[in-house]
Amino acid sequence: MTLTDAEQRFLSAQQLGRLATIGPGGAPQVKPVGFSYNDQFGTIDIAGYNMAQSAKYKNVQHNPAVAFVVDDRPDGGLEGTRFLEIRGVAEAVPGTGADAHPDADAPGLAMGTGIIRIHPRRVLSYNVDPTHSGLWARGLVGPGHVVSEGA
Amino acid sequence: MTLTDAEQRFLSAQQLGRLATIGPGGAPQVKPVGFSYNDQFGTIDIAGYNMAQSAKYKNVQHNPAVAFVVDDRPDGGLEGTRFLEIRGVAEAVPGTGADAHPDADAPGLAMGTGIIRIHPRRVLSYNVDPTHSGLWARGLVGPGHVVSEGA
Repeated sequence: MTLTDAEQRFLSAQQLGRLATIGPGGAPQVKPVGFSYNDQFGTIDIAGYNMAQSAKYKNVQHNPAVAFVVDDRPDGGLEGTRFLEIRGVAEAVPGTGADAHPDADAPGLAMGTGIIRIHPRRVLSYNVDPTHSGLWARGLVGPGHVVSEGA
Repeated sequence: MTLTDAEQRFLSAQQLGRLATIGPGGAPQVKPVGFSYNDQFGTIDIAGYNMAQSAKYKNVQHNPAVAFVVDDRPDGGLEGTRFLEIRGVAEAVPGTGADAHPDADAPGLAMGTGIIRIHPRRVLSYNVDPTHSGLWARGLVGPGHVVSEGA
Protein backbone atom coordinates (compact mmCIF):
# COMPACT_ATOMS: atom_id res chain seq x y z
CA MET A 1 0.00 0.00 0.00
CA THR A 2 1.61 3.21 -1.17
CA LEU A 3 -1.15 5.60 -0.13
CA THR A 4 -2.67 6.05 3.31
CA ASP A 5 -6.32 5.27 3.99
CA ALA A 6 -7.08 9.00 4.12
CA GLU A 7 -5.37 9.55 0.77
CA GLN A 8 -7.28 6.68 -0.80
CA ARG A 9 -10.56 8.08 0.53
CA PHE A 10 -9.68 11.48 -0.90
CA LEU A 11 -9.01 9.95 -4.32
CA SER A 12 -12.14 7.84 -4.35
CA ALA A 13 -14.32 10.91 -3.72
CA GLN A 14 -13.18 12.53 -6.97
CA GLN A 15 -13.92 11.60 -10.57
CA LEU A 16 -11.25 13.67 -12.30
CA GLY A 17 -7.54 14.11 -11.82
CA ARG A 18 -5.03 15.98 -13.94
CA LEU A 19 -2.02 14.23 -15.44
CA ALA A 20 1.17 16.05 -16.39
CA THR A 21 3.52 14.35 -18.83
CA ILE A 22 6.61 15.46 -20.74
CA GLY A 23 6.09 16.02 -24.45
CA PRO A 24 8.51 15.21 -27.28
CA GLY A 25 10.27 18.59 -27.00
CA GLY A 26 10.74 18.32 -23.23
CA ALA A 27 7.90 20.70 -22.35
CA PRO A 28 5.07 19.64 -20.05
CA GLN A 29 1.53 18.78 -21.10
CA VAL A 30 -1.45 18.43 -18.76
CA LYS A 31 -4.89 16.88 -19.23
CA PRO A 32 -7.95 15.97 -17.16
CA VAL A 33 -8.23 12.20 -16.77
CA GLY A 34 -10.36 9.53 -15.15
CA PHE A 35 -8.44 7.33 -12.74
CA SER A 36 -8.60 4.58 -10.18
CA TYR A 37 -6.37 3.62 -7.29
CA ASN A 38 -5.17 0.07 -7.86
CA ASP A 39 -4.65 -1.36 -4.39
CA GLN A 40 -3.17 -4.58 -5.76
CA PHE A 41 -0.15 -2.76 -7.14
CA GLY A 42 -0.34 0.50 -5.20
CA THR A 43 -0.61 2.37 -8.49
CA ILE A 44 -2.81 5.03 -10.05
CA ASP A 45 -4.40 3.58 -13.19
CA ILE A 46 -5.58 6.01 -15.86
CA ALA A 47 -7.86 5.13 -18.75
CA GLY A 48 -9.71 7.05 -21.41
CA TYR A 49 -11.02 7.09 -24.94
CA ASN A 50 -8.38 6.12 -27.50
CA MET A 51 -5.83 5.98 -24.70
CA ALA A 52 -3.25 4.02 -26.70
CA GLN A 53 -3.44 6.63 -29.47
CA SER A 54 -3.26 9.61 -27.12
CA ALA A 55 -0.34 11.99 -26.78
CA LYS A 56 -0.07 11.29 -23.06
CA TYR A 57 0.27 7.55 -23.65
CA LYS A 58 3.01 8.13 -26.24
CA ASN A 59 4.66 10.66 -23.94
CA VAL A 60 5.07 8.15 -21.10
CA GLN A 61 6.47 5.61 -23.56
CA HIS A 62 9.30 8.07 -24.25
CA ASN A 63 9.62 9.67 -20.83
CA PRO A 64 8.05 7.90 -17.85
CA ALA A 65 8.25 10.86 -15.46
CA VAL A 66 4.74 12.08 -14.61
CA ALA A 67 2.85 14.05 -12.00
CA PHE A 68 -0.81 13.59 -11.14
CA VAL A 69 -2.99 15.77 -8.96
CA VAL A 70 -6.45 15.50 -7.46
CA ASP A 71 -7.96 18.41 -5.58
CA ASP A 72 -11.16 19.65 -4.00
CA ARG A 73 -12.51 22.71 -2.24
CA PRO A 74 -14.70 21.54 0.62
CA ASP A 75 -15.27 25.17 1.72
CA GLY A 76 -15.92 26.47 -1.78
CA GLY A 77 -13.13 29.07 -1.72
CA LEU A 78 -9.63 29.01 -3.20
CA GLU A 79 -8.15 29.20 0.30
CA GLY A 80 -9.72 25.89 1.22
CA THR A 81 -8.29 23.97 -1.73
CA ARG A 82 -6.94 20.57 -0.69
CA PHE A 83 -4.80 18.46 -2.99
CA LEU A 84 -2.97 15.20 -3.37
CA GLU A 85 -0.10 15.26 -5.86
CA ILE A 86 1.55 12.02 -6.86
CA ARG A 87 4.85 12.12 -8.72
CA GLY A 88 6.20 8.95 -10.12
CA VAL A 89 7.14 6.68 -12.93
CA ALA A 90 4.47 5.72 -15.43
CA GLU A 91 4.18 2.73 -17.69
CA ALA A 92 2.03 2.47 -20.80
CA VAL A 93 0.12 -0.80 -20.38
CA PRO A 94 -1.40 -2.14 -23.59
CA GLY A 95 -4.71 -4.02 -23.68
CA THR A 96 -8.14 -3.07 -22.51
CA GLY A 97 -8.67 -1.35 -19.23
CA ALA A 98 -10.55 -4.47 -18.11
CA ASP A 99 -7.60 -6.71 -18.99
CA ALA A 100 -5.06 -4.39 -17.47
CA HIS A 101 -6.94 -3.67 -14.28
CA PRO A 102 -8.06 -6.24 -11.72
CA ASP A 103 -11.37 -4.43 -11.24
CA ALA A 104 -13.13 -4.12 -14.58
CA ASP A 105 -15.90 -2.14 -12.93
CA ALA A 106 -13.55 0.54 -11.62
CA PRO A 107 -14.92 3.97 -12.58
CA GLY A 108 -13.19 5.61 -15.50
CA LEU A 109 -11.50 2.39 -16.61
CA ALA A 110 -14.11 0.92 -18.93
CA MET A 111 -13.17 3.05 -21.92
CA GLY A 112 -10.62 2.63 -24.65
CA THR A 113 -7.57 0.42 -24.96
CA GLY A 114 -4.45 0.72 -22.89
CA ILE A 115 -3.90 2.41 -19.57
CA ILE A 116 -1.25 4.58 -17.99
CA ARG A 117 -0.12 3.12 -14.68
CA ILE A 118 1.65 5.43 -12.25
CA HIS A 119 4.01 3.99 -9.67
CA PRO A 120 4.19 6.67 -6.96
CA ARG A 121 7.66 7.84 -5.94
CA ARG A 122 6.78 11.05 -4.10
CA VAL A 123 3.48 12.06 -2.53
CA LEU A 124 2.60 15.64 -1.56
CA SER A 125 -0.66 16.36 0.17
CA TYR A 126 -2.29 19.47 1.54
CA ASN A 127 -4.91 19.01 4.27
CA VAL A 128 -5.84 15.58 2.93
CA ASP A 129 -4.78 13.41 5.85
CA PRO A 130 -6.08 14.57 9.26
CA THR A 131 -2.96 13.13 10.92
CA HIS A 132 -0.79 15.47 8.78
CA SER A 133 -2.53 18.84 8.44
CA GLY A 134 -1.07 21.39 6.07
CA LEU A 135 1.53 20.33 3.55
CA TRP A 136 2.95 16.84 3.91
CA ALA A 137 5.53 15.36 1.56
CA ARG A 138 7.10 11.94 1.57
CA GLY A 139 9.16 9.79 -0.74
CA LEU A 140 8.59 6.17 -1.68
CA VAL A 141 11.04 3.68 -3.15
CA GLY A 142 9.10 0.64 -4.17
CA PRO A 143 5.76 -0.24 -2.59
CA GLY A 144 5.26 1.30 0.83
CA HIS A 145 8.85 2.16 1.66
CA VAL A 146 8.89 5.64 3.13
CA VAL A 147 12.32 7.18 2.65
CA SER A 148 11.65 10.70 3.91
CA GLU A 149 8.95 12.56 5.74
CA GLY A 150 7.90 16.10 6.49
CA ALA A 151 7.02 19.16 4.47
CA MET B 1 -5.86 38.78 -27.87
CA THR B 2 -4.45 35.27 -27.73
CA LEU B 3 -7.63 33.48 -26.68
CA THR B 4 -11.00 33.51 -28.40
CA ASP B 5 -14.06 34.98 -26.73
CA ALA B 6 -15.40 31.48 -26.11
CA GLU B 7 -12.11 30.41 -24.52
CA GLN B 8 -12.09 33.48 -22.29
CA ARG B 9 -15.67 32.78 -21.21
CA PHE B 10 -14.73 29.19 -20.42
CA LEU B 11 -11.81 30.35 -18.26
CA SER B 12 -13.81 32.98 -16.43
CA ALA B 13 -16.42 30.42 -15.39
CA GLN B 14 -13.82 28.41 -13.45
CA GLN B 15 -12.01 29.24 -10.23
CA LEU B 16 -9.27 26.61 -10.39
CA GLY B 17 -6.80 25.56 -13.04
CA ARG B 18 -3.91 23.12 -12.80
CA LEU B 19 -0.37 24.20 -13.60
CA ALA B 20 2.34 21.78 -14.72
CA THR B 21 5.95 22.89 -14.35
CA ILE B 22 9.29 21.12 -14.70
CA GLY B 23 11.09 20.44 -11.42
CA PRO B 24 14.84 20.62 -10.77
CA GLY B 25 15.40 17.00 -11.86
CA GLY B 26 13.49 17.42 -15.11
CA ALA B 27 10.33 15.64 -13.92
CA PRO B 28 6.94 17.33 -14.03
CA GLN B 29 5.05 18.75 -11.06
CA VAL B 30 1.38 19.77 -11.08
CA LYS B 31 -0.69 21.89 -8.69
CA PRO B 32 -4.16 23.46 -8.47
CA VAL B 33 -3.93 27.25 -8.85
CA GLY B 34 -6.07 30.35 -8.97
CA PHE B 35 -5.71 32.32 -12.17
CA SER B 36 -6.94 35.20 -14.27
CA TYR B 37 -6.83 35.92 -17.98
CA ASN B 38 -4.93 39.15 -18.50
CA ASP B 39 -6.42 40.68 -21.63
CA GLN B 40 -3.87 43.49 -21.67
CA PHE B 41 -1.02 41.06 -22.32
CA GLY B 42 -2.95 38.03 -23.53
CA THR B 43 -1.46 36.04 -20.67
CA ILE B 44 -2.66 33.71 -17.92
CA ASP B 45 -1.67 35.24 -14.57
CA ILE B 46 -1.37 32.89 -11.60
CA ALA B 47 -1.18 34.00 -7.98
CA GLY B 48 -1.26 32.26 -4.63
CA TYR B 49 -0.09 32.24 -1.05
CA ASN B 50 3.68 32.58 -0.74
CA MET B 51 3.92 32.41 -4.51
CA ALA B 52 7.48 33.76 -4.68
CA GLN B 53 8.59 31.05 -2.23
CA SER B 54 6.74 28.24 -3.98
CA ALA B 55 8.34 25.40 -5.90
CA LYS B 56 6.37 26.27 -9.03
CA TYR B 57 7.67 29.86 -9.01
CA LYS B 58 11.24 28.63 -8.66
CA ASN B 59 10.63 26.00 -11.30
CA VAL B 60 9.66 28.55 -13.94
CA GLN B 61 12.70 30.66 -13.05
CA HIS B 62 14.85 27.69 -14.07
CA ASN B 63 12.69 26.27 -16.86
CA PRO B 64 9.96 28.48 -18.34
CA ALA B 65 8.12 25.67 -20.15
CA VAL B 66 4.69 25.15 -18.57
CA ALA B 67 1.27 23.72 -19.32
CA PHE B 68 -1.97 24.88 -17.75
CA VAL B 69 -5.40 23.27 -17.97
CA VAL B 70 -8.92 24.26 -17.03
CA ASP B 71 -11.76 21.80 -17.39
CA ASP B 72 -15.40 21.27 -16.56
CA ARG B 73 -18.06 18.62 -16.89
CA PRO B 74 -21.31 20.32 -17.86
CA ASP B 75 -23.09 16.95 -18.16
CA GLY B 76 -21.67 15.56 -14.92
CA GLY B 77 -20.02 12.52 -16.54
CA LEU B 78 -16.43 11.85 -17.54
CA GLU B 79 -17.48 11.60 -21.19
CA GLY B 80 -18.65 15.20 -21.15
CA THR B 81 -15.38 16.64 -19.84
CA ARG B 82 -14.39 19.80 -21.71
CA PHE B 83 -10.95 21.33 -21.36
CA LEU B 84 -8.73 24.18 -22.41
CA GLU B 85 -5.00 23.45 -22.24
CA ILE B 86 -2.55 26.28 -22.67
CA ARG B 87 1.11 25.47 -23.26
CA GLY B 88 3.58 28.26 -23.18
CA VAL B 89 6.45 30.14 -21.72
CA ALA B 90 6.12 31.41 -18.17
CA GLU B 91 7.84 34.25 -16.41
CA ALA B 92 8.14 34.70 -12.66
CA VAL B 93 7.00 38.27 -12.01
CA PRO B 94 8.06 39.67 -8.63
CA GLY B 95 5.90 42.12 -6.66
CA THR B 96 2.38 41.86 -5.39
CA GLY B 97 -0.38 40.47 -7.52
CA ALA B 98 -1.95 43.93 -7.41
CA ASP B 99 1.23 45.58 -8.71
CA ALA B 100 1.86 42.96 -11.31
CA HIS B 101 -1.68 42.76 -12.63
CA PRO B 102 -3.65 45.63 -14.13
CA ASP B 103 -6.81 44.47 -12.37
CA ALA B 104 -6.17 44.29 -8.65
CA ASP B 105 -9.65 42.92 -8.10
CA ALA B 106 -9.12 39.95 -10.39
CA PRO B 107 -10.20 36.79 -8.57
CA GLY B 108 -7.37 34.70 -7.25
CA LEU B 109 -4.82 37.47 -7.61
CA ALA B 110 -5.14 39.25 -4.26
CA MET B 111 -2.95 36.80 -2.35
CA GLY B 112 0.79 36.61 -1.83
CA THR B 113 3.70 38.21 -3.60
CA GLY B 114 4.80 37.43 -7.12
CA ILE B 115 2.85 35.90 -9.96
CA ILE B 116 3.52 33.39 -12.70
CA ARG B 117 2.59 34.83 -16.08
CA ILE B 118 2.04 32.40 -18.94
CA HIS B 119 2.51 33.55 -22.50
CA PRO B 120 0.49 31.06 -24.57
CA ARG B 121 2.30 29.34 -27.44
CA ARG B 122 -0.08 26.48 -28.13
CA VAL B 123 -3.76 26.16 -27.25
CA LEU B 124 -5.66 22.87 -27.24
CA SER B 125 -9.35 22.85 -26.53
CA TYR B 126 -12.00 20.17 -26.40
CA ASN B 127 -15.61 21.26 -26.95
CA VAL B 128 -14.89 24.72 -25.55
CA ASP B 129 -15.51 26.86 -28.62
CA PRO B 130 -18.82 26.15 -30.42
CA THR B 131 -17.20 27.10 -33.73
CA HIS B 132 -14.63 24.29 -33.25
CA SER B 133 -16.36 21.29 -31.69
CA GLY B 134 -14.23 18.36 -30.58
CA LEU B 135 -10.49 18.78 -30.29
CA TRP B 136 -9.00 21.98 -31.67
CA ALA B 137 -5.31 22.82 -31.51
CA ARG B 138 -3.51 25.89 -32.72
CA GLY B 139 -0.11 27.49 -32.30
CA LEU B 140 0.66 31.08 -31.45
CA VAL B 141 3.88 33.01 -31.97
CA GLY B 142 3.54 36.29 -30.18
CA PRO B 143 0.16 37.82 -29.40
CA GLY B 144 -2.61 36.61 -31.65
CA HIS B 145 -0.56 35.18 -34.50
CA VAL B 146 -2.04 31.86 -35.47
CA VAL B 147 0.61 29.72 -37.14
CA SER B 148 -1.26 26.45 -37.47
CA GLU B 149 -4.78 25.19 -37.08
CA GLY B 150 -6.65 21.95 -36.80
CA ALA B 151 -6.63 18.97 -34.48
